[in-house]
Amino acid sequence: MSTKQELALCHQRIAPYIHRTPVLTSTFLNHISGTQLVFKCENFQRMGAFKMRGAASAISNLSLKQQSKGVVTHSSGNFAQALSLSAKSLGVKAYIVMPSNAPQVKKDAVKGYGGEVIECPPTLKEREETAFKIQIEKGATFIHPSNDLDVILGQGTAAIELLQDYPDLDYIFTPVGGGGLVAGTALAAKYYGNNCKTIGAEPFEVDDAYRSLQSGKIETNKTANTIADGLKTQLGTINFPIIQEHVSEIIRVEESEIITAMRFVWERMKIIIEPSCAVPFAALLRKKDRFREQKIGIIFSGGNVDLDNLPF
Amino acid sequence: MSTKQELALCHQRIAPYIHRTPVLTSTFLNHISGTQLVFKCENFQRMGAFKMRGAASAISNLSLKQQSKGVVTHSSGNFAQALSLSAKSLGVKAYIVMPSNAPQVKKDAVKGYGGEVIECPPTLKEREETAFKIQIEKGATFIHPSNDLDVILGQGTAAIELLQDYPDLDYIFTPVGGGGLVAGTALAAKYYGNNCKTIGAEPFEVDDAYRSLQSGKIETNKTANTIADGLKTQLGTINFPIIQEHVSEIIRVEESEIITAMRFVWERMKIIIEPSCAVPFAALLRKKDRFREQKIGIIFSGGNVDLDNLPF
Repeated sequence: MSTKQELALCHQRIAPYIHRTPVLTSTFLNHISGTQLVFKCENFQRMGAFKMRGAASAISNLSLKQQSKGVVTHSSGNFAQALSLSAKSLGVKAYIVMPSNAPQVKKDAVKGYGGEVIECPPTLKEREETAFKIQIEKGATFIHPSNDLDVILGQGTAAIELLQDYPDLDYIFTPVGGGGLVAGTALAAKYYGNNCKTIGAEPFEVDDAYRSLQSGKIETNKTANTIADGLKTQLGTINFPIIQEHVSEIIRVEESEIITAMRFVWERMKIIIEPSCAVPFAALLRKKDRFREQKIGIIFSGGNVDLDNLPF
Repeated sequence: MSTKQELALCHQRIAPYIHRTPVLTSTFLNHISGTQLVFKCENFQRMGAFKMRGAASAISNLSLKQQSKGVVTHSSGNFAQALSLSAKSLGVKAYIVMPSNAPQVKKDAVKGYGGEVIECPPTLKEREETAFKIQIEKGATFIHPSNDLDVILGQGTAAIELLQDYPDLDYIFTPVGGGGLVAGTALAAKYYGNNCKTIGAEPFEVDDAYRSLQSGKIETNKTANTIADGLKTQLGTINFPIIQEHVSEIIRVEESEIITAMRFVWERMKIIIEPSCAVPFAALLRKKDRFREQKIGIIFSGGNVDLDNLPF
C-alpha cells in the first residue's frame, strides 16, 4: 500500500473519534507577518491537542484481540490524556504510567478520561520498566507517543484536512517535540499538497531536531529550560528518517519569542494556545522576511495550559 | 415598517462590515450544566466584541451628509473601538471622547482603529459636555453606546444569526450592561425564534436592570465592584421599555461565579472571553436545575481582556 493510501485509510479510520477542527485566520496576524496565514486549530481537538489523532490511529489499527487486552504508554503530557480518551472511545482499557511527581491535575485528567494511572519513580528507566511490566502482566500493547508509524500517520491527518480546505499552501509549519507531528505533516504535505513544504520549529533550548538534521544522527538535548514543555522529548528512529527526507528545515526560536507569539494569538485571535503551540508562529515571525506574501498553514498543536502559571 | 423588517434590513446593511461569527459547542459544558448549549462567539467579532454590530448599524443608517461630518461618542470601553473601526470601514470620521485617566492601551486601541481621541476630565458631566461641543463644532452625530434604536437593532443581529443556525432554541442568555444587547436579542428572539425566551444576566454588584424590572422604573447602581467592567453602565429610556416587554427575566450572579464560569470556558473551550462575557453562562450554572435538558443559546459578548490583570 502506498503512503498516500495509508494516510487516507488512517484518516477514515479515526474520523469517528476526532473532531474535524476549524481553520481560523486573522487579518492582524497577516499584517504583522506579511504573509497569508491559516491556522489549523488542534487546540479545539478532543482533549485539547492533536495527539488525539495519533492515539486513535494506533489503537484503531490494533487487532480486536490486542484491543481486548488494552494499551499502555508512559507520559505525563497530552499523550497520556489522548491515549486514555481514544481508548475509552474505542472501548479499550488504557494503562498510563506516570511519574509519582506528576502534578495531581494531570493524573486527574487521565482518570477523567477513563485511563488507569500507574505511578512509578520519576526516572525514564523506571517509567520504561513499569510500562514493560504491564505489557507482560496484562498483555497490553505499548503505544509510543511519537515514534510509531500509526501515530505518525494519525498526526498527519490534521495537515490532510488543512490541505483539503486550503490546497495551495506554500508551507506548513509545525512544532517539533518527539517528531510525530512534523513527520506526519511532512508526509501529508508531500501527498496532499501542491509543492507544499514542511517546516519544523523548536526552541533553542531543546534544539535536538535542528542538530540531528545537521549531524545526520539523532542528537540529545543538553538543556531543556523551555516554556514549551511539550517539546522536551527526543526524536525517534522511526520518525527521524521521515523528517530527514521530507522536512525542509527546522527554525529555532528564543523563549521570549515564544511568549510574544503566544500573546499575539491570545490577544488578537481570542483563542488559547499552549506555549509549545506558539513555537511555529514564533519561528515564522522570526524569519518573516523570507516568507513574504507566501501562503502558510500553521498547525496549532494544542491548548492545554495551566492558567495558574501563565508567562504574562 | 415592522420591527422584523427593520431587523432584517439592519442585518443586511451591516453584513459587509461584520464577521458572521462561529457558533461553538462543548460536550463538557453540556455535561456540567445538564443543558444543550450553543455559544455565539462574538469574542471573534471584529475588534473582539458584539459592539461592532451596533456601531456599524448606527453609522450605516446615517445620511451621506451626516456621515460626511463624522460621528462622536464618549466611551472608554469596547464601544469606543467599535465606533472607530465601523467608522473607518464606512469611510467616516470618528471622534471618541475618553477620560484622561483611561489606560493608554485603550487610547492606543482606538487610534489603531482610526478614531480621533479627545481627552477630557474623568467625570460623566465633562464627557457629555465634551461630546456635545464636538457635535456643535464639527457637526458630528452623537451615537450612544446602548440607548439608540439603530444600535439596539444592530446588537440583535447576533441572535438573528444564532437562530438561523439553531432555530429551535428555548432560551437565549445575554449579559446586561447598558441594555442594548439584551434588548436587541429579545427583539430578534421574538421575531426569529420559535417561542424562544430571552434571559439577561448581571452581577449582583451592578444589578440595576434586575431592580428596574422589579420597580418598573430605571434604577441606578450604588455599588460597582465587579470584575465585569463592561456591565457597569446604566439602562436607558429607549432600551428599558423593550426589556420590560420582551425580556423574561434577569438572573444575578456573584463575582466568584463569574470567575468560575470564565475559567471553565477558557480551560474547556480554549477560547478567551472577557469577564462580562462569562456572566450569562455563570447565571445558567447558578440556576441550572431550572433549565435541565433545555436548548440554550448564549451570546459570548466579547474577548477583550487585559492579560496582565487576570483573575487567576
